Amino acid sequence: MTTPYAELSQRLADLTALEEVVGILSWDQEIVMPSGAAEARGRQLATVQVVAHERLTHPRLAELLAGLRQDATLDATQAANVREAQRDVVKAARVPAELVRALAATAVRGHEVWVHARKHKNFQEFAPVLTELVDLAKARAAAIAPHKPAYDVLLDDYEPGMTMARLDPVFARLKEVLLPLIARVRAAPQPDVAWLRQPVPAETQRQVGEAIVRAMGYDFTCGRLDTSVHPFCGGAGPTDVRITTRYDEGAFLGSLTGMIHETGHALYEQGRDLALADQPVSRPRSMGIHESQSLLWEKQVGHCAPFWQAHYPKLQQSYGFLAGKPLSAFLQGVNYVDPNNFIRVAADELTYPLHVILRYELERELFSGTLAVRDLPAAWNARMQGYLGITPPDDAVGVLQDVHWSGGAFGYFPCYTLGALYAAQFYQTAVEQHPEIPEQLAQGAVEPLLGWLRTHVHKVGSRLETDALVTAATGRPLDPEPFLRYATAKFTRLYQL
Amino acid sequence: MTTPYAELSQRLADLTALEEVVGILSWDQEIVMPSGAAEARGRQLATVQVVAHERLTHPRLAELLAGLRQDATLDATQAANVREAQRDVVKAARVPAELVRALAATAVRGHEVWVHARKHKNFQEFAPVLTELVDLAKARAAAIAPHKPAYDVLLDDYEPGMTMARLDPVFARLKEVLLPLIARVRAAPQPDVAWLRQPVPAETQRQVGEAIVRAMGYDFTCGRLDTSVHPFCGGAGPTDVRITTRYDEGAFLGSLTGMIHETGHALYEQGRDLALADQPVSRPRSMGIHESQSLLWEKQVGHCAPFWQAHYPKLQQSYGFLAGKPLSAFLQGVNYVDPNNFIRVAADELTYPLHVILRYELERELFSGTLAVRDLPAAWNARMQGYLGITPPDDAVGVLQDVHWSGGAFGYFPCYTLGALYAAQFYQTAVEQHPEIPEQLAQGAVEPLLGWLRTHVHKVGSRLETDALVTAATGRPLDPEPFLRYATAKFTRLYQL
Repeated sequence: MTTPYAELSQRLADLTALEEVVGILSWDQEIVMPSGAAEARGRQLATVQVVAHERLTHPRLAELLAGLRQDATLDATQAANVREAQRDVVKAARVPAELVRALAATAVRGHEVWVHARKHKNFQEFAPVLTELVDLAKARAAAIAPHKPAYDVLLDDYEPGMTMARLDPVFARLKEVLLPLIARVRAAPQPDVAWLRQPVPAETQRQVGEAIVRAMGYDFTCGRLDTSVHPFCGGAGPTDVRITTRYDEGAFLGSLTGMIHETGHALYEQGRDLALADQPVSRPRSMGIHESQSLLWEKQVGHCAPFWQAHYPKLQQSYGFLAGKPLSAFLQGVNYVDPNNFIRVAADELTYPLHVILRYELERELFSGTLAVRDLPAAWNARMQGYLGITPPDDAVGVLQDVHWSGGAFGYFPCYTLGALYAAQFYQTAVEQHPEIPEQLAQGAVEPLLGWLRTHVHKVGSRLETDALVTAATGRPLDPEPFLRYATAKFTRLYQL
Repeated sequence: MTTPYAELSQRLADLTALEEVVGILSWDQEIVMPSGAAEARGRQLATVQVVAHERLTHPRLAELLAGLRQDATLDATQAANVREAQRDVVKAARVPAELVRALAATAVRGHEVWVHARKHKNFQEFAPVLTELVDLAKARAAAIAPHKPAYDVLLDDYEPGMTMARLDPVFARLKEVLLPLIARVRAAPQPDVAWLRQPVPAETQRQVGEAIVRAMGYDFTCGRLDTSVHPFCGGAGPTDVRITTRYDEGAFLGSLTGMIHETGHALYEQGRDLALADQPVSRPRSMGIHESQSLLWEKQVGHCAPFWQAHYPKLQQSYGFLAGKPLSAFLQGVNYVDPNNFIRVAADELTYPLHVILRYELERELFSGTLAVRDLPAAWNARMQGYLGITPPDDAVGVLQDVHWSGGAFGYFPCYTLGALYAAQFYQTAVEQHPEIPEQLAQGAVEPLLGWLRTHVHKVGSRLETDALVTAATGRPLDPEPFLRYATAKFTRLYQL
């Protein structure tokens, strides 16, 4: 006889499989699909999402969950699995199937239009479909929680429990420390980094990058590395993790650090509890925690001395122009705060939070109704001028630079900065507990650090909610101070402030 | 208000989308999926197939079909759509969901094991999973039609209406004419074809092949060309048609004619009625008719003089060793009846039907129970010796050479020879009606021929059943004589018999 929990697990396994199918269809759409198939792909994605929605809202699933939420015999993992499933079910039950279908189909079209508009540097080409996407997201938020601000409902999609009320003081504190620090960095003598911008053929970059990705512990038997316009980590569960990058032949660093970033995401996915891979409880906790893993590797590790003590000599062998340059000069280049950078994914650690805060503030206004879609480019450019003192020359490097909105993802951007804050908390705690981590990294050994992350983050999955996970790992919940201390110390040293 | 027919169409469109998703997952599995994902992919495919099965057996669908089958107001296309859907529903209703799940999961595992076994030239490694696949296919056939021979039920999957009783006399007639013709060809002076076996880099082959594929009318905005162990035409509907090939650097001809073959399949898919692309009535009629399209282009066109009058000069430019050789010598090479060829996909037109008849006879015996899976290699080799006078040196070029069984596809092989017979019927009729076709081909223009196929085959889809389609197009149903006349005349001329 099947127990209620076993029946629940089978239903959740089917839902996981459908989510994984969406992962493959989305990867395919981005990387290999012929352009003529866009409309058909929209229908395919919409159908799978409607099927998943029907299953998530099946009365039997609600019935099973209602019983199991009262079941005191479940162990902690089972109880967490029930809690996570319940959260999905409640959200899905409130969104009508037709709205799900419209969101999926519009997201596919939005992506195609965005690619074209970005190529032609013309935001207004993208504006009509973006307006549709915003309206659909508002409709969805109203269906889930009619009495909450729409944007709080969207934030909760990516970072459960997060609200504007909780973000505002954190972002205010970041501005308080970072804006003057950026000003001091800008006023300091600027390092020469032009020597780093030598052309490197894409194929050489790929080989060097792949070796570093491999050295970080990425398992290619359960993953791929491809190229795409916007780098991402996608795929279908822990045994099929697919990262992408783009190669700019005139700026190898961006590609290399991008690969390290996506590998951080991928290590999280590959490190999930395989025995529970088809259950919600094994899922990465949230997008903020996901970003903590990519940013920990990209910034705390991949922008600092120990990691490059191991890898810089290999880089020098492949890229001749590095041969005479000391590691200290390379690190100045890696951490260069480019006063003319418009691009979030190319931003340094100091200005990155401001790129995010800009988007957060624009999204808030879009969803509160105080900003119209057609006015986004002007609002974007004004805020970019206000925070970073620069104005993008065109929409492609301004308001059109990110893929997120084209797929209907609003409320996602804050997770990048939450990730930076969590990353600093995790890394500082890991080093406190394993002081040998920096010297092991300097010898090319990721194990003590990766092992700590496996134990305290990857294998935990969604067993704990975000605050509990972060508190269990570091002793306290979200806290901007470790990041601010790290950033202040690092850039004070680099720029001799 | 939604009419019953509109409601049916929506349900069928969802089913088509799910079939297309299976197409993408299968392509992905073959071309890009990391090996570690095999188990997860099995779960994903099984889940989508179970979902499709549930929808196909939904009581509302049966109810709609029951009403619409009596509806005299439907036009011919709508009535055919109802007929095709009904056929799927009846078959699905009889196969339990658990059997569908087991078949899908075992097929994924079968494929992985087959790749490994083939690499290691060891059939016995593959035997256990093949036994499972045979047993599952028997169980499925018994569920569909318990009183029919299992193999007739399997034949009907790929070629609706086909039976052993109907195939036996056709195959007997082929043996009657082809075995003595092959003997005469073997006894004749053999042409020198060694000069064709010069090495050609894979990338050059790809460029030349892609240009020819394009010249045949293949639309790359709705398709792709990739490499795989076993060439195939897959994808997801008429706007996402994906062909593959493999490049043997020592034998460019096999890759080139393989690409022409898969392009024939692809032109059929791309030529479907786009307005009905999400409905069963637009589907290719059967696997036999599908093969008629690939073989028409590969053999009737791509193994004969007119086509190469257009393309041989380009080939000579890319492959220097062809420069001094006349077209007549090239055609002798293209049509060479290699007395030592073990491989079906590399076989010439004369021996190909015997490769198929061999597999047909072994499958018949497997399903009647007179042959055990473990005895397949010996039975294969004995029959190969009997028909073609050769014995494969190992299983990789013998019983393990084809992908079909590893995916649970039994009863498929006869379609290749049905396709060759239909191809001759179609091509001879097209040329009777448009005598300018050969001279147009000689000038590189595919249009009069492609137009005839679009009208009489591609756009017809499944509006007509097989016999009706072939009769409407050529004036008579399946008939081996046009193929036998063509083959006898062609090889008598080539070998000066």
